[in-house]
Amino acid sequence: MSRIKIKTLLSDSALYLDSTIEVKGWVRSKRGNKHVAFIALNDGSTILTFQIVCDTQTFSEEMLKDVTTGACIKAIGKVVASQGAGQSVEMQATSVEVIGKADPETYPLQKKGHSLEFLREIAHLRPRTNTFSAVLRMRHAMAFAIHKFFNDKGFFYIHTPIVTGSDAEGAGAMFQVTTLDLNNVPKVEGKVDYTQDFFGKATNLTVSGQLEGELGAMALGEIYTFGPTFRAENSNTTRHLAEFWMIEPEMAFYELVDNMNLAEEFLKYVIRYALDHCIDDLKFLNEMYDKELISRLESVTQHPFVRLTYTEAVEILKSSGHKFEYKVDWGTDLQSEHERYLVEKHFKKPVILTHYPKEIKAFYMKLDEDGKTVKAMDVLFPGIGEIIGGSQREDNLEKLTARCAEVGIHESDIWWYLETRKFGSAPHSGFGLGFERLMLFVTGMGNIRDVIPFPRTPKNAEF
Amino acid sequence: MSRIKIKTLLSDSALYLDSTIEVKGWVRSKRGNKHVAFIALNDGSTILTFQIVCDTQTFSEEMLKDVTTGACIKAIGKVVASQGAGQSVEMQATSVEVIGKADPETYPLQKKGHSLEFLREIAHLRPRTNTFSAVLRMRHAMAFAIHKFFNDKGFFYIHTPIVTGSDAEGAGAMFQVTTLDLNNVPKVEGKVDYTQDFFGKATNLTVSGQLEGELGAMALGEIYTFGPTFRAENSNTTRHLAEFWMIEPEMAFYELVDNMNLAEEFLKYVIRYALDHCIDDLKFLNEMYDKELISRLESVTQHPFVRLTYTEAVEILKSSGHKFEYKVDWGTDLQSEHERYLVEKHFKKPVILTHYPKEIKAFYMKLDEDGKTVKAMDVLFPGIGEIIGGSQREDNLEKLTARCAEVGIHESDIWWYLETRKFGSAPHSGFGLGFERLMLFVTGMGNIRDVIPFPRTPKNAEF
Repeated sequence: MSRIKIKTLLSDSALYLDSTIEVKGWVRSKRGNKHVAFIALNDGSTILTFQIVCDTQTFSEEMLKDVTTGACIKAIGKVVASQGAGQSVEMQATSVEVIGKADPETYPLQKKGHSLEFLREIAHLRPRTNTFSAVLRMRHAMAFAIHKFFNDKGFFYIHTPIVTGSDAEGAGAMFQVTTLDLNNVPKVEGKVDYTQDFFGKATNLTVSGQLEGELGAMALGEIYTFGPTFRAENSNTTRHLAEFWMIEPEMAFYELVDNMNLAEEFLKYVIRYALDHCIDDLKFLNEMYDKELISRLESVTQHPFVRLTYTEAVEILKSSGHKFEYKVDWGTDLQSEHERYLVEKHFKKPVILTHYPKEIKAFYMKLDEDGKTVKAMDVLFPGIGEIIGGSQREDNLEKLTARCAEVGIHESDIWWYLETRKFGSAPHSGFGLGFERLMLFVTGMGNIRDVIPFPRTPKNAEF
Repeated sequence: MSRIKIKTLLSDSALYLDSTIEVKGWVRSKRGNKHVAFIALNDGSTILTFQIVCDTQTFSEEMLKDVTTGACIKAIGKVVASQGAGQSVEMQATSVEVIGKADPETYPLQKKGHSLEFLREIAHLRPRTNTFSAVLRMRHAMAFAIHKFFNDKGFFYIHTPIVTGSDAEGAGAMFQVTTLDLNNVPKVEGKVDYTQDFFGKATNLTVSGQLEGELGAMALGEIYTFGPTFRAENSNTTRHLAEFWMIEPEMAFYELVDNMNLAEEFLKYVIRYALDHCIDDLKFLNEMYDKELISRLESVTQHPFVRLTYTEAVEILKSSGHKFEYKVDWGTDLQSEHERYLVEKHFKKPVILTHYPKEIKAFYMKLDEDGKTVKAMDVLFPGIGEIIGGSQREDNLEKLTARCAEVGIHESDIWWYLETRKFGSAPHSGFGLGFERLMLFVTGMGNIRDVIPFPRTPKNAEF
């Protein structure tokens, strides 16, 4: 007899009614009375549990003593209509075998609820909880939706390098990668001798795949990256990780408006995908963590995003009468409180802000005709603030090298990037999405450590 | 008028016949006579070029002088049936605009062929060549096929950590990750003071996501990883990279035979996907690099893989009469020459070898009943040797800790891994596939540096 997954069984329970089947999984709970024991079994394929009914005439207390929370069991029996509430079918068991015990004295995940903080300390076991299995199934669904969206549009997935000798991106503090013996660093004239290092020079973990992604776009047309990126910033907040995953599409022949259209279509697609494919998990998260979750997701997919310029946004904020912690003035970067005011209070829907002052944006963004602003775009989401940042890229070699000089980037460090503007340059655009920011939005979780399997933060690289 | 991609156009050329359309892309070549100029245009969406025909009565030599190899252009005109060989349709241009020039004196990718070695030095431009655009499009298709295969089967994609404090995997030399100032490493009692490092301890780049993947499988049932892995080995061969991508499925309730079945089904699926979705690129690679490529791919999808034990394989090799460089005897690891003899000479099809001596396999593989061999499996492919390595995992806590002690792994280093055997343990299995090994097989390329966009090898981390 081959095992049936609980998701398969419950998705089409009428098909299995009156059949004898085998299920395997982990015990979530066991309860009962002197006539019958009820085992709630979960196998990870769905958040739903399958009820195994054990008649005490067939199963003695001794036989079921090791069927405890966390134990792995195999059960065989007939699928019957359930008398109880909460499930349409259940199993009338004829055989229950304990595959792997879980000592109730030491198994940390007993039936009672646990704090998210406690669960972070046992990240190796937390996928066995309802919350984290729901988050991880949704993480899978979102990753797949992203690949499917781009594949269906003819984009090509590019693996940009993780270890890089380039440090021109300027997106944040970097981790060094080395094979030098730190107890005995080789030096020449008092400085580290990187010629003895593995790559023959100083190397870092990437902070972004964008620059290399652009090289792909200028050959293949439309590409995207989806890989890990790293920031060595000592930020212990609910929004920062030292290791996180980014999605960065880059497209030849896209101007700013095309970029905005793509970003909006993309976000609506993946959120719609979550609603269509993860509803059981979403219902659980909606119930447990965020009663507005499902309606917020529905809302985002149903209305056009508001589009306005940074300059217009500053005017709205200045004339809002709202007291902000940080003062707003043209030329200053917007804080999270400003972004959220626009999205949550003023417009009550997602907002795309464009044309920021060049001083507060990266060197590679295309200069507007006025020479003051750049063709940047940030997509702002309720509860999140900036979820996407992007721009049309500067495709004019002279303007780009002038910007490099202004911000202190040596041309020799990014000669290869500049060459795409030297040979067959074209207007092109792209954006970046932090995958965990998206996961916060679609799961309603409040802490970024809870939407990635093994979070890396300052002083924490366990597992 | 909105641009049409060349792939879209050529896939359904009858639809566009007699229409006026716009195309954008990069010039591969321009040739002609005094009456007419022919531009071969490529936009990266396909390896095929679209022919733009410019009547010299409409287009003077002066107007077309910047239409040189590598230049980016926009062309508008009517789609007409082609008179020439090699294409069904072409454009009778009414307008050609040069978007970005490519100076013929300095642009490195002139029409003549270039060596793969030379192209590696200009990895920022090589995606504009037929060879590398074909490889990169196929790389995308293979990555998508892998996600689709697992998604359709109900597996969940897990992001295992890249930076890890664990060094128990023993799969190879590791890169250190640090934020310490290498010019001035802080020390305590003469040793590096890692408490001052970002993570508060020594950390490395992962060599495998397997151990963390198993944690996922023991909660969600069936998972896979697909992420970058790193080996700091000073190997300058055509088969080694310091940074490469691995796919590692792990499945609860799978025994060795289930693992073999999955691996065979998986490989056949992705290779069939290449044949079904990448035939234009495959035809090019077949023509240019490997005349047997397509027939080899077809062959692999059509026959069952041979399955035999290591012990049987050693007998075959010993009695083969073939002179090997390395002698074979029971207990020694098989060399590439032995693997390829079995696959290419003896069986002439892919082979799955199982039940290797425990001494030559990793600590986590499940011990056979005889106590001498383990439930390992290697899938061997023609031209490649080992393409997949996997095993049933040891699920018995006592046997696993005994193996740890034998090979010198401290339990305190992998307490979290051992706990999956302590709480609700179950038989489970998994395997690892090096993505670039698969890419070598499906593209017919000979050097692993040519199947990843930006290869990292000793002394090389450019771009």
